[in-house]
Amino acid sequence: MRELLVIGVGAGDPDHVTMQAVQALHTVDVFFVLDKGPATADLTEARRQILERFARPERHREVLVADPPRDRAATDYPDAVRLWRDARAELLERVLRAELADGGRGGFLVWGDPSLYDGTIRVLDTIVARGVLPLEYQVIPGISSVQALAARHRVTLNRVAGAVHVTTGRRLADGLPEGVDDLVVMLDARFAAKAYRDQQIDIYWGAYLGTPDEVLISGRLGEVVDRIERTRNELRERKGWIMDTYLIRRNP
Amino acid sequence: MRELLVIGVGAGDPDHVTMQAVQALHTVDVFFVLDKGPATADLTEARRQILERFARPERHREVLVADPPRDRAATDYPDAVRLWRDARAELLERVLRAELADGGRGGFLVWGDPSLYDGTIRVLDTIVARGVLPLEYQVIPGISSVQALAARHRVTLNRVAGAVHVTTGRRLADGLPEGVDDLVVMLDARFAAKAYRDQQIDIYWGAYLGTPDEVLISGRLGEVVDRIERTRNELRERKGWIMDTYLIRRNP
Repeated sequence: MRELLVIGVGAGDPDHVTMQAVQALHTVDVFFVLDKGPATADLTEARRQILERFARPERHREVLVADPPRDRAATDYPDAVRLWRDARAELLERVLRAELADGGRGGFLVWGDPSLYDGTIRVLDTIVARGVLPLEYQVIPGISSVQALAARHRVTLNRVAGAVHVTTGRRLADGLPEGVDDLVVMLDARFAAKAYRDQQIDIYWGAYLGTPDEVLISGRLGEVVDRIERTRNELRERKGWIMDTYLIRRNP
Repeated sequence: MRELLVIGVGAGDPDHVTMQAVQALHTVDVFFVLDKGPATADLTEARRQILERFARPERHREVLVADPPRDRAATDYPDAVRLWRDARAELLERVLRAELADGGRGGFLVWGDPSLYDGTIRVLDTIVARGVLPLEYQVIPGISSVQALAARHRVTLNRVAGAVHVTTGRRLADGLPEGVDDLVVMLDARFAAKAYRDQQIDIYWGAYLGTPDEVLISGRLGEVVDRIERTRNELRERKGWIMDTYLIRRNP
């Protein structure tokens, strides 16, 4: 039996790490890092800081798990993600078997919170369902970029007695959902909010939240949309990747 | 100028506290505790643990701020909350002036995350807008009960490329929102999900998350709904209050 810990380590600031995560990090023998391209490379320094501060010195190893290629041009997005997840599960199963001894404890550092737009839980469930490699795992929650965004802008996500809708850029591009006035948007490569620049909407935007590169912009959507788009393009060009999220709020 | 820190301290487990919160707790002179009735009394022990572990020993004080009475029978719920918030702002302003010296640093411990169904940010914004007592404040994010729920059930809140809707029991009682298959429900005194017991829905429910009293139930809504309701009633009777949250997921 192998034991795994899925550890949410926060939005990028090593100080987002919880005491529960600190205790968990200290018990891990092998850290598995799921490679996500240029962002992973850039976050190497933040990961190193976390492990240096909180993992057992000299007693842990790191294993980088390359991602299988993913068909990003696929029109059936959920289906493409599922195929890719299966390939990733098989690969990860092989790596776990090879790198983690029976009775050992493995750890996954997840940026943000493992419950929100992260595939680690699903890939582990896929391995468990295959039933070939016996494993148990626990999840340790972490500060998500959504919470870091709200904290830095000092806003609440919901308004009094209101609902909050957390969605993706792809979905927002299909239209503003009905009956909800407060939306958090994640995974938005194209900044879908700009289509709604003429509506009475406030935006609270943030990139690289919790890191030294953090940028925050807020205001009336129509008034700040061009500045946000310009900033996003500049940042993405400079760093090779961008991680941003935002809250939009109907506010007539 | 008075400086305030709004510190999210997690869902109830002192180990949910982040390193950022630990550092903040250590700088606070006076902690203001917004009294929320029986839950506040019951959480006194958890609060004491947090302060004992992380605040400056012998150098901080605690001030309990009683809540003004709130008209819970009001039909216009948002309006009643606003009136109550104004009354609370005036009261808190008086307490801050009396208990926190100019140049001192005050702290608010918020269970969960300050961005989600918590009134501290709004009450401080109300004081700032009144312009009578000069103050500055920062927000430190914390693990919300929603994240604790997901972690303990080892589920993700969103499905692949999907949206998540976070809403209240009152709103859920008005109907299942259209176009969203994954809902987190908070502040639900009457367990509104039971109205949907005949639908193809999975539920992941948790009470007193992160505390020694934590209870988790999950399954097909129709199959576990009676057990959840019975458990809720028993727990509420035993402790005098209940704090619970759940994820419901359409799953045909």
